[in-house]
Amino acid sequence: MAEISILTESELRQCVRLTKEVTDVIAAAFARLAQGGVVMPPVLSMELPQVNGEVDVKTAYVPGMDNFAIKVSPGFFNNPLKGLPSLNGLMVALSAETGIVSAVLLDNGYLTDIRTAAAGGVAARFMAPQRVETAGMIGTGLQARLQAQALLLERNVEHLLVWGRDAARARQYADEQTQVLGIPVSVADSAEALVKASQVVITTTPAKEPVIDADWLHPGLHITAMGCDSPEKNEIDPRVLVQADLVAVDRVSQSLERGEMRTAVKAGLIDADSILPELPAISAGLVPGRHSEEQITLCDLTGTGVQDTAIADLALRIARQKGLGTLIES
Amino acid sequence: MAEISILTESELRQCVRLTKEVTDVIAAAFARLAQGGVVMPPVLSMELPQVNGEVDVKTAYVPGMDNFAIKVSPGFFNNPLKGLPSLNGLMVALSAETGIVSAVLLDNGYLTDIRTAAAGGVAARFMAPQRVETAGMIGTGLQARLQAQALLLERNVEHLLVWGRDAARARQYADEQTQVLGIPVSVADSAEALVKASQVVITTTPAKEPVIDADWLHPGLHITAMGCDSPEKNEIDPRVLVQADLVAVDRVSQSLERGEMRTAVKAGLIDADSILPELPAISAGLVPGRHSEEQITLCDLTGTGVQDTAIADLALRIARQKGLGTLIES
Repeated sequence: MAEISILTESELRQCVRLTKEVTDVIAAAFARLAQGGVVMPPVLSMELPQVNGEVDVKTAYVPGMDNFAIKVSPGFFNNPLKGLPSLNGLMVALSAETGIVSAVLLDNGYLTDIRTAAAGGVAARFMAPQRVETAGMIGTGLQARLQAQALLLERNVEHLLVWGRDAARARQYADEQTQVLGIPVSVADSAEALVKASQVVITTTPAKEPVIDADWLHPGLHITAMGCDSPEKNEIDPRVLVQADLVAVDRVSQSLERGEMRTAVKAGLIDADSILPELPAISAGLVPGRHSEEQITLCDLTGTGVQDTAIADLALRIARQKGLGTLIES
Repeated sequence: MAEISILTESELRQCVRLTKEVTDVIAAAFARLAQGGVVMPPVLSMELPQVNGEVDVKTAYVPGMDNFAIKVSPGFFNNPLKGLPSLNGLMVALSAETGIVSAVLLDNGYLTDIRTAAAGGVAARFMAPQRVETAGMIGTGLQARLQAQALLLERNVEHLLVWGRDAARARQYADEQTQVLGIPVSVADSAEALVKASQVVITTTPAKEPVIDADWLHPGLHITAMGCDSPEKNEIDPRVLVQADLVAVDRVSQSLERGEMRTAVKAGLIDADSILPELPAISAGLVPGRHSEEQITLCDLTGTGVQDTAIADLALRIARQKGLGTLIES
């Protein structure tokens, strides 16, 4: 008989919010990944075309953490027609010593949202120019909101531009985020205008064709591309991967399979055995990040199991302190 | 907000036991797999040598079933030193329509034990000779117990032999199972004597070297090898795979990676692109099973996600009928 803690989304929201401390936790987890000892198998991916769905399972074992998480992320894209969110899921926490289930985190994808945004924060920390007058957000969904918050924890952005295919949603984003972020947010005339005016651009779309053209690059630009996380997606003109001064990814194997490297390999612009620097190695100080304000940099994020284990570990520690969760004997 | 049912091991034990109906459910799930439409990705496997552990994640989407399961199976082999079981885990059931978590089955591996034994029952149903006077069990653990029960649901076995490396455990098995099964169970002098005397032999060991030699084969013998489910294991002399009249596996891709086909390929006895008949196709009637009492047959079982989804679906239906489970809003 083991005692298992069941935590609901509302309880987990009381434990973890997007703060600089959470970005620190994700940066530290990335550093651990680079330093060795972490076991992170390839993503288990299941495509379900018959229901317009997909499921990804991610995990990583991080020595020294009490638990490791196995994260189940379903995306069922007909759900909005039924009034339900597309993305859902949970995390299972297993004891790092015994493998016994210690907790089930019924977060409906909330912790994934937070750890994804925090990885954007880490990318900004090490790769954005120090001075960011204008930042640009491409996309108008939940990650467009969270990534802006994560960026503002790292840089004193003065003005945010937004662009999305749906002008009404972009307008709504601008109005709402001007209040939320406390800086002016305005709608850009085009993705091109947004990129040209910004020192940091974040792409948060499910695009299958590039939303950023290599011709728009300019000195001192950093791009974080976090939307592309499956083999049919692509946000960045593959020429950016060869034209930028520094291109980093969260995990080379994943970027090759499901990130922006995939398209660049397909276009014949980079080799399939290319070893790009990884954000984890940059976080660990093993590889340099940006080293001048003039560099053009790109960071491609596909989402890694080590982020899931780190955020689950954090949430469980805080939940225990707060006495949250329902204990089940099994 | 979704309502999620949390089921404990003791509740699940009230819902599912090893019966002929459960073997029917697993046979039907195998047949569905062979008939197409099922999505079953490769196993996610994580080796954790630093803690003498491993974790497998299996899943399958079966059209027509209300839910699909994602099964997490940790094996931490230092646990017995701490008075804990090596094998644990849970299943997560997701709605087949929306991907939303519908239930968490905290079974500590119980449902895996049952669906594994039931697959042995399916193998016996289609591949064992009709008349089984003597059956032999190699191994003395939990599956050695459950596989004997599953076999007896399919054939009127008159006498069971057992053999294990630990003579005391074999003796204990024989004494106990004579009571449980209601037929005489005796300890064989050797694995060789057991195989030569039996019409059905089931291997249930974590062996890394063969426990059955091809020289012991004889007409009318069926072997079910269920112990080998990871790349370092091997129960069957690889020559058996070429000398037997009919060799089937639960899933060719898995047997090549983590089953008995792996060793036979390594020994150069079969090709890596060998297409052996699959038990699912035999269950569906698409491929013949045993067609004479004299054939020598082998079935290699590695354990498949479709079994997990089928047993979870069954358990959930019965739990709902019985009103079992704790509902959590999340």
